[in-house]
Amino acid sequence: MVKTLIFGHKSPDTDTITAALAASYLKNKLGQDTQAVRLGEVNKETEYALDYFNVEKPELIEHVPAEIENVILVDHNEFQQSVDNIKEVKIVEVIDHHRIANFETKEPLYFRVEPVGCTATILKKMYEENNIEITKNIAGLLVSAIISDSLLLKSPTCTQEDVDAAHELAEIAGVNLDEYGLAMLQAGADLSDKSINDLITMDAKEFEMNGSKVEIAQVNAVDTSKVIDLQSELEQEINATIADKKLDLFLFVVTDILNNDSEVIALGQAKDNVEKAFNVKLENNRALLKGVVSRKKQIVTNLTDTFM
Amino acid sequence: MVKTLIFGHKSPDTDTITAALAASYLKNKLGQDTQAVRLGEVNKETEYALDYFNVEKPELIEHVPAEIENVILVDHNEFQQSVDNIKEVKIVEVIDHHRIANFETKEPLYFRVEPVGCTATILKKMYEENNIEITKNIAGLLVSAIISDSLLLKSPTCTQEDVDAAHELAEIAGVNLDEYGLAMLQAGADLSDKSINDLITMDAKEFEMNGSKVEIAQVNAVDTSKVIDLQSELEQEINATIADKKLDLFLFVVTDILNNDSEVIALGQAKDNVEKAFNVKLENNRALLKGVVSRKKQIVTNLTDTFM
Repeated sequence: MVKTLIFGHKSPDTDTITAALAASYLKNKLGQDTQAVRLGEVNKETEYALDYFNVEKPELIEHVPAEIENVILVDHNEFQQSVDNIKEVKIVEVIDHHRIANFETKEPLYFRVEPVGCTATILKKMYEENNIEITKNIAGLLVSAIISDSLLLKSPTCTQEDVDAAHELAEIAGVNLDEYGLAMLQAGADLSDKSINDLITMDAKEFEMNGSKVEIAQVNAVDTSKVIDLQSELEQEINATIADKKLDLFLFVVTDILNNDSEVIALGQAKDNVEKAFNVKLENNRALLKGVVSRKKQIVTNLTDTFM
Repeated sequence: MVKTLIFGHKSPDTDTITAALAASYLKNKLGQDTQAVRLGEVNKETEYALDYFNVEKPELIEHVPAEIENVILVDHNEFQQSVDNIKEVKIVEVIDHHRIANFETKEPLYFRVEPVGCTATILKKMYEENNIEITKNIAGLLVSAIISDSLLLKSPTCTQEDVDAAHELAEIAGVNLDEYGLAMLQAGADLSDKSINDLITMDAKEFEMNGSKVEIAQVNAVDTSKVIDLQSELEQEINATIADKKLDLFLFVVTDILNNDSEVIALGQAKDNVEKAFNVKLENNRALLKGVVSRKKQIVTNLTDTFM
């Protein structure tokens, strides 16, 4: 058994999976004894990237085994998004690009958060700072993460650092950024074999907003109407989740990856907050959020304000 | 008015004051518009360092003025140790070496915490990473901070990185590390003009431990018995503080800078936790903690465990 496990958040996306893999490769090159693991199923977009660059997906864990000494968190820091027994393990490092909340340790640790669009952009710098060569495969994983988190550099979360990193990494990986990127996003937006439950859980994150519990699930789609057609079944499942987790709000976000808008379904006793946050009127629990693609920068920040 | 204020914790110590000054100098060299400020009186040790290297102390603020856009926190991250209106300001960066707790932002930021003995050690790296020259005065401030936080490299919080940084910085500052360090510590341990209230507030920090409120005040002394002789007056003032702030525990720590032990006075309904944490028996509310000098590494961590 290795000494240190490295993992991203639950409902893993491409940044979370590739960051764990790339961080583990880096740490091991630096003489540490680490292994990347994951907290949930790999989605189709991530699978496309892993297959393309011929990298095995990390092992699935349900909880951190007792014999593991340390963990490193990538791409998240909020405990409710992490492994269930997070409070019982020793966190020695965090590498992330999200807001900081619901995180607490007893002892000092390495904690590196930067306001960039993607954990991969920070990891690229860490490779460079430590003079560790970014191989073709690692570059492929990292550029896939940037494409995923930035919707091919179009999200408002995307910084100049992310853009520069993506171009450099695409070059090392030997891919055409736009062609590879669109193919990868489309692979992820293929929802044909998804169950209703898959749709609302495959990229869901829970947030605490001033005492209220809010879950935000997001799916990317090429044709959003195909998802919205399932509204009544989706609502049934979402309402069950709200009751089960005692949520104040569940926001289901269907993002159009070609036009960069999102259609949302809002349920729960705090659903009016969505109207306030985005200055829209919910009709039949639904609204179109023009130009909104980023959960982190456009949805969480605006919604948090309405709970203050 | 500048755009960004930089400050350390309340009851400022040498690391907090010098980190604010050194961080502001660095940021301004990099083209930002920042100013170092402080949240309380400068202690004698810090005054000695500032005088020695001919640097003005930062301006005192009570709260962040409304016209300030951003703040950068150094040497702390827990909100209860920060400026009173911390929740109303935009924190764009944190540079620290403490545990992370009671910190939350709405948006991503730069957050750099490393488990080293002193913020100055991280700042030294940041100067180097950004190719900004460490001047004689800045080196003097930074080495003073390391001496202070590590009790001249003797505290268990002191890492090899701190030791190496201290030697390099002393060289740039043109001082003999041991001679300058002892003189500076002795200047700080001169308690002759301190009131009872000064003693319990000059380096006091409040912690939340699993719902309990704990305040830990620390003074350095060459002759600890001179402080302990004041026990009855100290207890009167400490009990008033406990009532006023609704504390569960107040721990007053008198650290012997020559022998590296601490004598403590514990008051409050949770004072038994001190006995559990250090495996000692309080007699007349007092105990000697052999080899304990570090609030962060030896006191907070052991005490936190007893509140779990």
